[in-house]
Amino acid sequence: MTISERTPAAAEGPAVRASLDAETGIGRIVLDNPSQRNALSTAVMRSVTDALRAFAADPHVRVVVITAIGPVFSAGHDLSEMIDRTVDDERIVFDACTELMETVQRIPQPVIASVPGPAVAAGCQLVAACDLAVTSSTAVFGTPGVRIGLFCSTPMVAVTRAVGRKRAMQMLLTGETIDAHTAADWGLINEVVGPDELDARTEALASTISASSPLTLRIGKEAFYRQIDLPQHEAYELMGETMATNAVTCDAQEGMSAFLDKRTPQWTGR
Amino acid sequence: MTISERTPAAAEGPAVRASLDAETGIGRIVLDNPSQRNALSTAVMRSVTDALRAFAADPHVRVVVITAIGPVFSAGHDLSEMIDRTVDDERIVFDACTELMETVQRIPQPVIASVPGPAVAAGCQLVAACDLAVTSSTAVFGTPGVRIGLFCSTPMVAVTRAVGRKRAMQMLLTGETIDAHTAADWGLINEVVGPDELDARTEALASTISASSPLTLRIGKEAFYRQIDLPQHEAYELMGETMATNAVTCDAQEGMSAFLDKRTPQWTGR
Amino acid sequence: MTISERTPAAAEGPAVRASLDAETGIGRIVLDNPSQRNALSTAVMRSVTDALRAFAADPHVRVVVITAIGPVFSAGHDLSEMIDRTVDDERIVFDACTELMETVQRIPQPVIASVPGPAVAAGCQLVAACDLAVTSSTAVFGTPGVRIGLFCSTPMVAVTRAVGRKRAMQMLLTGETIDAHTAADWGLINEVVGPDELDARTEALASTISASSPLTLRIGKEAFYRQIDLPQHEAYELMGETMATNAVTCDAQEGMSAFLDKRTPQWTGR
Repeated sequence: MTISERTPAAAEGPAVRASLDAETGIGRIVLDNPSQRNALSTAVMRSVTDALRAFAADPHVRVVVITAIGPVFSAGHDLSEMIDRTVDDERIVFDACTELMETVQRIPQPVIASVPGPAVAAGCQLVAACDLAVTSSTAVFGTPGVRIGLFCSTPMVAVTRAVGRKRAMQMLLTGETIDAHTAADWGLINEVVGPDELDARTEALASTISASSPLTLRIGKEAFYRQIDLPQHEAYELMGETMATNAVTCDAQEGMSAFLDKRTPQWTGR
Repeated sequence: MTISERTPAAAEGPAVRASLDAETGIGRIVLDNPSQRNALSTAVMRSVTDALRAFAADPHVRVVVITAIGPVFSAGHDLSEMIDRTVDDERIVFDACTELMETVQRIPQPVIASVPGPAVAAGCQLVAACDLAVTSSTAVFGTPGVRIGLFCSTPMVAVTRAVGRKRAMQMLLTGETIDAHTAADWGLINEVVGPDELDARTEALASTISASSPLTLRIGKEAFYRQIDLPQHEAYELMGETMATNAVTCDAQEGMSAFLDKRTPQWTGR
Repeated sequence: MTISERTPAAAEGPAVRASLDAETGIGRIVLDNPSQRNALSTAVMRSVTDALRAFAADPHVRVVVITAIGPVFSAGHDLSEMIDRTVDDERIVFDACTELMETVQRIPQPVIASVPGPAVAAGCQLVAACDLAVTSSTAVFGTPGVRIGLFCSTPMVAVTRAVGRKRAMQMLLTGETIDAHTAADWGLINEVVGPDELDARTEALASTISASSPLTLRIGKEAFYRQIDLPQHEAYELMGETMATNAVTCDAQEGMSAFLDKRTPQWTGR
């Protein structure tokens, strides 16, 4: 594991690059192993997790983008790590996978998947796990594990919660992919753009978000995942308290005052 | 707090009017403070809650409509109540807000939001909390709190449960509004009509619903919110018992008999 | 209860036929009481449940299709069983109904609803409960119980979890049906085809699924329903273990090896 010259705070591993644009505050994690179709080997998954944690600890990072080099976003797990192994070996793979997916949602900054091409199995799960996703119209999405005897049970956790029961079952039981527009229609991704527009549109989305107070974004993202699985009444109790304490922060007081004064707010992150 | 002449059973407060059409059984709550973009001040929220409770207790009310005067349905909380306040002051605002949203779902009659224009922040939450929503094509919906330092964490509870994760995150993290057709496509509202058709279409929907037995509607609405957050097996156990006891009511026996006899049922509300 | 000549393993009752195509492994359960609009009487529901259980126990059955003869898929419960009854009598009906709906999801094989025409009330619930659904463009779907005094509270459990809150409320409170394309748009069914294509398209979907390992399908379907109602973290813990143990099965090892060798896998079901 080495540290990128451009990103002293961000970890980097084999086939994964991490960098921070100091001007925009956009942290970028790039899957860069196109000859392996950006397989999520255990080493790669741990590198992405480490990079996310390094970004989480870096106050200069306002938004994180996960993207990929090459025609494929990610083909999922590295099967060579899963053949002729003990069940304990297999557990290591899936533990690393879940750790990655949960870390995406646990870091304080919003995470955007920027998807240039096919995202399948754990690759599809990674897209589903990100807070937001923008995709090229050439991308497809699928959970084809059923066809090779290994049901996409962990991708299912994220995919079911994104697209609902019948559509998740269709993807899981047939193993067939869906195109980018269908994925947007089903709520798996937020926006489809032409392949040439992907970087610009991702950047624009990241910039829109990074104009907000990092404190507010952190409060909101953490709150989102705390309330999502709760019964509604419990969610309201927790969110009422979250919003009351958010309201007395300096950034909320500044934001509300600036809005009433019709001026641009100045965030202090407190 | 005064009582409307037309609606002895319905409470009314500043900027809120409540009335009952005795002929149709449609109770109407109108946000009527267009110069303040129908801000949901604590007083307004309590007035709406009181009006809902008065309607709940009035057997002549079959369906409730919440609508607004002016180009904006509601711009959300009254920010002037939230600047330079203690956290206890803020809690009073959000407690009143949650009380309103939960009361919408707790009263026995179906509640329809009839939305002539933009509904944002707590205004969007109110639309999401209503059982049904009809909207003018000119309306937009959003949770823009992130832009003023105050993440829309309580609106998030209702909005996430209506539109799903990725779309809720998009609204919450960017603060951008969605148009009426997108809101319908995402399941936040039920129907989009031209601005001139909003009242007539709302009335038609309310009339369709009020043709059913008020007892059956009460049983069904209460059951809906009891089962919605339960694991499926528990939901089935509860709903099986609900339906068995519903089936022996006079109105169900009358309704089934009338259906088999091809005649119009006569409801007694028992 | 008699046993079909073609399907020694499958039970059969009045108005229900069950058969197994030994070549394709497709088990078929047919509602065949068109003069009663395929009403789900207690006897019919128990026959379908028995047929599902017989298929569950038969290793030759790879996929199950539930379909119907006549213009109507199913009009729901047999009202004549519910008039002038005690609450205990009513409980028997709803217990049999829930047992059927849960059995659809509990058997190891995927279950496809193939819907030639209207599916309402418990008929709509049956479609919602199936893992997948293909429908003729002439079908409509609804939960009209509210109109006859008997709110569709048990159908609501399945329908709400398929189409979300606002749309479920619309169906439940108005009792109006939605057409097949709307049902697909809302996620209640997977695919709409012309009436003449329904059988062929159902067969093609079943064949796609039955090409996968029955062991993998069993693991996956059981896992789907175990994780669906869990908070995400618990779901990941359970699915990580599910996938690790799935990975060391013979069929997963064969499937992954065959994929890397670019050959067709040979399933042993172990």
